[in-house]
Amino acid sequence: MSQLKNDRYLRALQCLPVDYTPIWMMRQAGRYLPEYRQLRAKAGDFMTMCQTPELACEATLQPIRRFDLDAAIIFSDILTIPDAMGLGLYFETGEGPKFKKTISCLDDIAQLPIPDPGQSLKYVMDAIGLTKKELGGKVPLIGFSGSPWTLATYMVEGGSSKTFTKIKKMLYCAPKALHLLLEKLANSVILYLNAQIEAGAQSIMIFDTWGGVLSHESYRAFSLYYMELILSQLKRGKKSQNITSYVPVTLFTKGGGLWLDTISKSGADAIGVDWTVDLNQIEQKGKIAIQGNLDPSILYANKETIESNVESVLCEFGYHNGHVFNLGHGIHQDIPIEHVQYLVESVHTRSKRFHS
Amino acid sequence: MSQLKNDRYLRALQCLPVDYTPIWMMRQAGRYLPEYRQLRAKAGDFMTMCQTPELACEATLQPIRRFDLDAAIIFSDILTIPDAMGLGLYFETGEGPKFKKTISCLDDIAQLPIPDPGQSLKYVMDAIGLTKKELGGKVPLIGFSGSPWTLATYMVEGGSSKTFTKIKKMLYCAPKALHLLLEKLANSVILYLNAQIEAGAQSIMIFDTWGGVLSHESYRAFSLYYMELILSQLKRGKKSQNITSYVPVTLFTKGGGLWLDTISKSGADAIGVDWTVDLNQIEQKGKIAIQGNLDPSILYANKETIESNVESVLCEFGYHNGHVFNLGHGIHQDIPIEHVQYLVESVHTRSKRFHS
Repeated sequence: MSQLKNDRYLRALQCLPVDYTPIWMMRQAGRYLPEYRQLRAKAGDFMTMCQTPELACEATLQPIRRFDLDAAIIFSDILTIPDAMGLGLYFETGEGPKFKKTISCLDDIAQLPIPDPGQSLKYVMDAIGLTKKELGGKVPLIGFSGSPWTLATYMVEGGSSKTFTKIKKMLYCAPKALHLLLEKLANSVILYLNAQIEAGAQSIMIFDTWGGVLSHESYRAFSLYYMELILSQLKRGKKSQNITSYVPVTLFTKGGGLWLDTISKSGADAIGVDWTVDLNQIEQKGKIAIQGNLDPSILYANKETIESNVESVLCEFGYHNGHVFNLGHGIHQDIPIEHVQYLVESVHTRSKRFHS
Repeated sequence: MSQLKNDRYLRALQCLPVDYTPIWMMRQAGRYLPEYRQLRAKAGDFMTMCQTPELACEATLQPIRRFDLDAAIIFSDILTIPDAMGLGLYFETGEGPKFKKTISCLDDIAQLPIPDPGQSLKYVMDAIGLTKKELGGKVPLIGFSGSPWTLATYMVEGGSSKTFTKIKKMLYCAPKALHLLLEKLANSVILYLNAQIEAGAQSIMIFDTWGGVLSHESYRAFSLYYMELILSQLKRGKKSQNITSYVPVTLFTKGGGLWLDTISKSGADAIGVDWTVDLNQIEQKGKIAIQGNLDPSILYANKETIESNVESVLCEFGYHNGHVFNLGHGIHQDIPIEHVQYLVESVHTRSKRFHS
């Protein structure tokens, strides 16, 4: 394995000094790139892209070739586990992910298998292995999964939801069934993410996209608890002089800004935050790494607006160690690519003075 | 005008002592009530209900007859102002509100009229007048409007949205146009709410349903600023021994839990909070009234679960003055009515010990 040439992202996740703030973007391999749209058109559907290691590898590398990003994230989906459990993940144009089968009772849950990552999810490991090789140590490679709660919402609702009525009914009316589902999912995520680490992932993201729809009490019991379970069993390695000997984990609960104190005690190395959070008010800065938090819609604006908003985020974070610049959510599909260029350059250039 | 027989809600909004915690529910006049569904079936569409004072009055009174609620809220919609501006509000079954015309540029905004509440919104004042008379002082009557930012999101997006792409594009690419729109809306809301007060509304709610999708900086500039403008110009009267001489105003920014400190300085009498907020952690308790914050999905559960969750909310709020019990969002359409009965009884019974 070739040596890592750019370790800023991994250093920032360990709250170590860097020369400037590293940046990557959620959904950086995606539709806003013309080369992605071309690749996708050839591949046909989204799942074929995910399940064909060569295509997933190519999609992962595209943004790294075009921009000076400090990390790559494996091209995949947060819902691979329920798909591997047999629910049949599919995508309809212009809509979110959907499942052919849904989960509605204890019986459904009891029958769910825990996927063997070496079997039904082997395609992800193959994609990671291939991409790692192709990257040649240019930047670190991130592996990921959806959080148990987030996976469960899609499995019970059958897709994305505005009101989350079905899963909330389960939560309040059949909490034991939901806990069983979440436990199965947590165990599956542990196996899955450890396999990703073994395949070469150098950092892990847990996307808790829907944790923010829970009450503060339910968040702790139904989302954070299971992420803590995962964190306690990931084979992260040991911190050492060799920065790559340790695999840092970032938890991102969208809409979880009110609970940063609790999340910071979860055992995660970094917390992802969205744009509702004023980085200035995060008390844990310097102790735990923070990832975020530009509103992705800012990338619609002109160069000056992008730069002044980058400046705001950097100033809010200030002179601490442990900042990974990112958007507060995935990049929109219709962002002009030159605006991404402004963003990346501006983060690198303007952050230098905070790291002297 | 007959004297007010139950002033708990108004007293709580002024942080005055009460014998038990008052409760009302957002969307309490609505589809979960069989008598509402019957009325609505006779009326035909939703807007006819809003625009016919007798029907709006009847819908407002229905939940008050059935449950021991401590306030009535006039049956209407948050989007009456843009409708009166000529955008053509309509509802399709199973979907959110939509507009026939949308706003996309400075020209559109320049042409928008500021509605005269005595003309195009007279039906709301008539409904308030009639309802006030019919209530006969049983409980206070709440008037309301959407916040300028929330009205603008619907006017620009044409309906509800997941991503708010159009209005965010306007915010970041044409902020001056958006400010002009928000200023017009704020001026319209001021006239509208003052007319509601004159017609008999005894308390005002400003629903900022979509403030929570903004960044913390944009929230202050594009939502809170205009609500403060409104608050500074509402004819609230003066606080006195006669509790009804003052019209308290509640600001509810859904998803605004991170900004309670800023919101508490807005000039509002009360802040609405959703279920993501731990009431225990609100520093302003006792100084400003708090409305909330049960997750409405809890009403799907059984009596014991409803009661234990009511207990949690009451305990979190503790022994301060200034709590109005409510859901953190509108009640769902398919909640069994006996569960609402459990909720109301449980809030009244269990809160007594916090007020001795």
